[in-house]
Amino acid sequence: MQAFNWPVRVYYEDTDSGGVVYHSNYLNFMERARTEWLRSLGFGQQALREQTGVIFAVTHVDVSFVKPACFDDLLDVTCEVESVRAASMCIQQRIVRHDDGVELCRAKVKVACLVAETLRPTPMPKQIKTEIERVY
Amino acid sequence: MQAFNWPVRVYYEDTDSGGVVYHSNYLNFMERARTEWLRSLGFGQQALREQTGVIFAVTHVDVSFVKPACFDDLLDVTCEVESVRAASMCIQQRIVRHDDGVELCRAKVKVACLVAETLRPTPMPKQIKTEIERVY
Amino acid sequence: MQAFNWPVRVYYEDTDSGGVVYHSNYLNFMERARTEWLRSLGFGQQALREQTGVIFAVTHVDVSFVKPACFDDLLDVTCEVESVRAASMCIQQRIVRHDDGVELCRAKVKVACLVAETLRPTPMPKQIKTEIERVY
Amino acid sequence: MQAFNWPVRVYYEDTDSGGVVYHSNYLNFMERARTEWLRSLGFGQQALREQTGVIFAVTHVDVSFVKPACFDDLLDVTCEVESVRAASMCIQQRIVRHDDGVELCRAKVKVACLVAETLRPTPMPKQIKTEIERVY
Repeated sequence: MQAFNWPVRVYYEDTDSGGVVYHSNYLNFMERARTEWLRSLGFGQQALREQTGVIFAVTHVDVSFVKPACFDDLLDVTCEVESVRAASMCIQQRIVRHDDGVELCRAKVKVACLVAETLRPTPMPKQIKTEIERVY
Repeated sequence: MQAFNWPVRVYYEDTDSGGVVYHSNYLNFMERARTEWLRSLGFGQQALREQTGVIFAVTHVDVSFVKPACFDDLLDVTCEVESVRAASMCIQQRIVRHDDGVELCRAKVKVACLVAETLRPTPMPKQIKTEIERVY
Repeated sequence: MQAFNWPVRVYYEDTDSGGVVYHSNYLNFMERARTEWLRSLGFGQQALREQTGVIFAVTHVDVSFVKPACFDDLLDVTCEVESVRAASMCIQQRIVRHDDGVELCRAKVKVACLVAETLRPTPMPKQIKTEIERVY
Repeated sequence: MQAFNWPVRVYYEDTDSGGVVYHSNYLNFMERARTEWLRSLGFGQQALREQTGVIFAVTHVDVSFVKPACFDDLLDVTCEVESVRAASMCIQQRIVRHDDGVELCRAKVKVACLVAETLRPTPMPKQIKTEIERVY
């Protein structure tokens, strides 16, 4: 699989008074990339929820904050499947500064498939699992 | 009515790279104060939703950002009813720096009562309206 | 002036448990549009700060939240100058749902030019004022 | 060391349209607890920055999101030093629901001491290191 890439611009809302992006906001950027990656495979998550009753939820993250991103930086946020199981998947993500390719952040994110109403784990809908295994 | 007061501490998450609290976060602080004011009157909003099916939603704000709050500042966020109607109320709010009482922000916030499922306006539950009119 | 338009996608991070975009996040969306509007005129704000020592800060907002935006919605956020003064400008902004053009939010936002170091008001750099008056 | 505990209330701003706290916001809650823990030891971080020129920055997190927190929940966020080095420390944190003590989230957070101006690693100020080693 070639990593999926999603561009993210850093706005004031993302920064803190240390002058750089506030650490938890990188997780938001990474979720934007995962959302757009699923959309690129044909799965808008709102439609998915309405049609199948499932949502994806983050159950574990391991994140290294390597270098800071700054206001107005353009970032490339990538997303690559590491492993797929029946009801979850593990995704590797990186954030690099677009202008010079310097790595700012890297992470492993585990995402579980849940029944939206009960928040209990459930196998991924077959069409998603098939499509993810195809590109993986 | 004496204004209800709720203390809020400024953390890194609230600031931006200008070195001060990011403007939209003052609205979050003001909602925390409204939430705690309602709780002080006996109305936890989650219980309210479960029992009556209604939620409160902000429909209009007019906010003056007078002076900036900084990281680690302790703020006093007040909340005072200006007017009450069947399905909405208008609340005056101020944010002052706790240490010297300097006004940082003042706002008028209009809050409407909505059916949670449909997001349509509905009259406030009677016990809330009565209690608000009592303290008002 | 034709209104500047910036597309914004709604992600989970923008929503709340009411099922819709949390009210203060519309202000973030509007700042993204103002930032991109200034960039489209040739003024990246980080470069501006480094070169002239000034930043823009929101000093007043008047916002009507008309209808809710939902997860996965694509929004058009517009930005149109209403008036320009020496050290501030007033900008009209609207947020509409891209798919059907329904208006979700409209606002007047007053933005002041400040010395970054002292946060005191200062006249806008001439090249910006000239350019804004040209498009206005 | 007995774990330091800081109470956090969940507001609308913290939740997402899945009906629960948005995952990255737990990191914000954990930073609030670390900030208050340092304050309880006598170290306000703004004063620290002004007096010594250093800030603390998160360089690595490993977070398990065990169960979801909901709107209006009261949470206990704990903070316990796992190890201290010259220029960094590793902190174990847990978030439990106050009412029934159920664990919602646990994390290891590595925090580095940086020169605020350059964002380069630097040894912790001696008075902090001494105090942390005393309670540790």
